[in-house]
Amino acid sequence: MANSKQTKKGLIIIYTGNGKGKTTAALGQALRAAGHGMQVCIIQFIKGAWRCGELEAFKRFDDLIDFHVTGKGFTWKSENLEEDKKIARQGWQLAQAAIGSGQYQLVILDELTYLAKYGMIDTQELVDVLTGKPESLHVVVTGRSAPQGLLDIADLVTEMKAVRHHYESGTKAQKGIEF
Amino acid sequence: MANSKQTKKGLIIIYTGNGKGKTTAALGQALRAAGHGMQVCIIQFIKGAWRCGELEAFKRFDDLIDFHVTGKGFTWKSENLEEDKKIARQGWQLAQAAIGSGQYQLVILDELTYLAKYGMIDTQELVDVLTGKPESLHVVVTGRSAPQGLLDIADLVTEMKAVRHHYESGTKAQKGIEF
Repeated sequence: MANSKQTKKGLIIIYTGNGKGKTTAALGQALRAAGHGMQVCIIQFIKGAWRCGELEAFKRFDDLIDFHVTGKGFTWKSENLEEDKKIARQGWQLAQAAIGSGQYQLVILDELTYLAKYGMIDTQELVDVLTGKPESLHVVVTGRSAPQGLLDIADLVTEMKAVRHHYESGTKAQKGIEF
Repeated sequence: MANSKQTKKGLIIIYTGNGKGKTTAALGQALRAAGHGMQVCIIQFIKGAWRCGELEAFKRFDDLIDFHVTGKGFTWKSENLEEDKKIARQGWQLAQAAIGSGQYQLVILDELTYLAKYGMIDTQELVDVLTGKPESLHVVVTGRSAPQGLLDIADLVTEMKAVRHHYESGTKAQKGIEF
């Protein structure tokens, strides 16, 4: 039966859209998997996107969750595009190593989509690496503006759509809730 | 300055929509808050919605996260509507007690919207309790079809929209990823 075989297939999951909850869902996914004793690798492609709350929480799972911060700040804007690309590619190489290592059951590539958006990595290269992943490995990708090529290969795509956001009414980001 | 005072205000956050990631985001929110040392209460209104992965993960946070399962299975369908209402109200009373206790900085009401949807609790009653919460308390509500009255009082609403779902292609729910 085709179906029973398919259930062993690792999923490619994408959380995209302009709403809150993408990284938060990835965080939940990491901890759900760790709760099952799965080995998890999280690579964050935007420096500063994950902060104290997450890092402290992960300390209680340091036997199961590996966490890496790569990349630059949110804008990826600088005078030195070549330097930016180099930093982006370093993160991406780390991701490829984690995907190919056979060491993890879940790899989370948080804010990976920005690398494609800002032209740091070709979408086709992202697609090639993800479609070439070990079959049983689950991969979660988050970030706004996921490129179509990436959406096309995903098993599960959720668009987080901002319906209302308190920033609009002048409230600042809050500790323990958004970071 | 109004803003500096506003930052102490606890938020009402709603994750709704037909896509995946609502409960997963709530789980991430719980662990982010716990990472900051905040006391968290999670009440699940659909029995079976959270399973082994989450429960195991929470064991590592039993000093910070209280977890309660209430309610019935996903359909809330039965021959005995009065019995169902009674069960729903018991869960809701627990929620009200947690909200009013002053013991928590974050209360998560997972799948609460179903209680309104199935007419177990009046939307107005949900609204009254949430707007009457302690000012600094954060509340996260998840579930499909959040009623308009609830959306109106939220600080932050994200609609999780299903763009693609692997169930469509015959793959079953997977351990460590969806439960």
